[in-house]
Amino acid sequence: MSLPNCETLLLEQREGVLYVTLNRPDSRNAMSLSMVEELRAVLAAVRHDHRVRALVLRGAGGHFCAGGDIKDMASAKARGNDAYRDLNRAFGSLLEEAQCASQVLIAVLEGAVLGGGFGLACVSDIAITRQDAKYGLPETSLGILPAQIAPFVVKRIGLTQARRLALTAARFDGTEALRLDLVHFCENDDQAVAERLEQSLQQVRQCAPGANAATKALLLATETEPLGTVLDHAANQFADAVLGNEGTEGTLAFVQKRKPTWAQ
Amino acid sequence: MSLPNCETLLLEQREGVLYVTLNRPDSRNAMSLSMVEELRAVLAAVRHDHRVRALVLRGAGGHFCAGGDIKDMASAKARGNDAYRDLNRAFGSLLEEAQCASQVLIAVLEGAVLGGGFGLACVSDIAITRQDAKYGLPETSLGILPAQIAPFVVKRIGLTQARRLALTAARFDGTEALRLDLVHFCENDDQAVAERLEQSLQQVRQCAPGANAATKALLLATETEPLGTVLDHAANQFADAVLGNEGTEGTLAFVQKRKPTWAQ
Amino acid sequence: MSLPNCETLLLEQREGVLYVTLNRPDSRNAMSLSMVEELRAVLAAVRHDHRVRALVLRGAGGHFCAGGDIKDMASAKARGNDAYRDLNRAFGSLLEEAQCASQVLIAVLEGAVLGGGFGLACVSDIAITRQDAKYGLPETSLGILPAQIAPFVVKRIGLTQARRLALTAARFDGTEALRLDLVHFCENDDQAVAERLEQSLQQVRQCAPGANAATKALLLATETEPLGTVLDHAANQFADAVLGNEGTEGTLAFVQKRKPTWAQ
Repeated sequence: MSLPNCETLLLEQREGVLYVTLNRPDSRNAMSLSMVEELRAVLAAVRHDHRVRALVLRGAGGHFCAGGDIKDMASAKARGNDAYRDLNRAFGSLLEEAQCASQVLIAVLEGAVLGGGFGLACVSDIAITRQDAKYGLPETSLGILPAQIAPFVVKRIGLTQARRLALTAARFDGTEALRLDLVHFCENDDQAVAERLEQSLQQVRQCAPGANAATKALLLATETEPLGTVLDHAANQFADAVLGNEGTEGTLAFVQKRKPTWAQ
Repeated sequence: MSLPNCETLLLEQREGVLYVTLNRPDSRNAMSLSMVEELRAVLAAVRHDHRVRALVLRGAGGHFCAGGDIKDMASAKARGNDAYRDLNRAFGSLLEEAQCASQVLIAVLEGAVLGGGFGLACVSDIAITRQDAKYGLPETSLGILPAQIAPFVVKRIGLTQARRLALTAARFDGTEALRLDLVHFCENDDQAVAERLEQSLQQVRQCAPGANAATKALLLATETEPLGTVLDHAANQFADAVLGNEGTEGTLAFVQKRKPTWAQ
Repeated sequence: MSLPNCETLLLEQREGVLYVTLNRPDSRNAMSLSMVEELRAVLAAVRHDHRVRALVLRGAGGHFCAGGDIKDMASAKARGNDAYRDLNRAFGSLLEEAQCASQVLIAVLEGAVLGGGFGLACVSDIAITRQDAKYGLPETSLGILPAQIAPFVVKRIGLTQARRLALTAARFDGTEALRLDLVHFCENDDQAVAERLEQSLQQVRQCAPGANAATKALLLATETEPLGTVLDHAANQFADAVLGNEGTEGTLAFVQKRKPTWAQ
């Protein structure tokens, strides 16, 4: 696997984890078109690489992501309606691809988690927030729409909460994010966030990479395919997994009361 | 806009808000066919009027709504199966139309919130309850079905909670309604309810009316349309909004660090 | 109604309730193919019998169900891919049938609630857990998939929680199960569990058997059918119910301020 060169992202790979840091701290990591393209390139580069077991997505400088980039917006304005549409839709494609990443996607949320940043949080498999993070969907207060993130927000926190947040632009903190099931863990300081991240990565390492990738795809498929179809397909996948390398090793390790190879 | 004359509703319009009060206190605002028709007429009258930014729905006399009206039921009985069917289906149409109201629908919930009243609560964008309100789905204990409200209840609180409540007719209070994500706020007395309502209206006024209407429609569409279709459509809406009057004013106001016109 | 002879289940019928106890305590009630077949036979036997108002599903020996049976797995291995597939799919059919049982399905959850046991918990109408029960989806840590249970887990607790649990194999207790909306009640000891079960059964007995069966089917249909179709159908069902035996008795009893026949 070779990772793309990135100007807006910091990439660091160690122990089966790819750490991706949004790195435009001067603009609170606002989502520029370059950043969207680089994130998509990174996801594409690791898509079929099971040596990368987890992706950790966070922001530099104390913020996760403050939403869309104002400068890109201004530039698009000069180019008209189609430019805005394409800019917006590209971010939606990023969300679709991040949602389906074959790795476990862990989001570390602190500071501003607004608009597009809120959308990114919604496609993570494990979300860890600092208690004092600031969440919100400010779009309608700017006269625009939370266009690409709307379906991911509804999927994540349900229509009831999404409608109030989107129609009031209300801000909230990490405690409320936990209550809304937007995130899995709410921690009080950087140290606690770091420990929770490490614990989560340890848990992910207990799970077989191929089984995890297939399971994640299966969970997502349950949302769009008829139940009978999902179950038929899942039964075939189950049989393949049990008789495959991971299933053979995993059940043998269980009987032998040792850790399977992927957990060592 | 001209509002219909109503016998079962009190209507009051001020500062961009239409206050709709169910006004049959002698029957705890039981939902009669007349009330259904009048509510539908009110929703139709304001549908395309963005000067009305929010609808506040509540009940007179300390109750929200105790469910279907017994007298109407008796009258329908004399007219047979079709009359019952039409009576019931009309209420479902009301729920569909209230769900899709282009304004922000705020429900103030107190006293009895039963059966059809429970259904109305389920289509609100913001729900504020008194802690001592009484919620429940009593239908099956009467030998009948929560027929029209079932899909709205499942959508609102999920299948897990809906199935227990519908199959046990269990009652619960505002604290539990908050825990179930049926409502957004639970307050202890009328004063706290009034303050929460005013705060919510203030937040709604920060948001552009057209953007809010389009966003609400978008959120609802995510529940029924394929993801790619929603995202394509949303990108077009985004471009239109940014280049439209509200988007131009909103982003300009943001740069100029002033409130946009709609928030003044 | 005649119940099938069962080797892996204890069956006891009294006061309109069928108590079904998974009875393989030596293997923590691991789900063998025999147990799957016997559970399906029991559900089929009572499907059209409204004298059975509730099914109480629990495990013998302090555990609910620890998941799939290792011996059956080993036996299937000798017979190859198709045997695994069929074994797995049969469990999915059990979950589908339990989900649609016309009775109220109450799960009493204690000890191990793992894998397939977790799946069974997800299709109950009322779930009561001991606080010290142990929940988890260990499949991926064994190199395999939570194949048949995946759609039921996502439906029950939502994609956000399902993805973390399935991709980390994390364990959790009854307190967390309540927070995740996996269960309705969390109790500290056997006495409290017994009282909660009795209270739930009392509530179920207040509800008309036919209305409950129709309502449960309606709630499930809302998840797969278009809204307009559901509402049209529900209106017909409503009219039939009101004019039927249960509706006539229920509304008459209400007017006469007495309990309806089914609640006595």
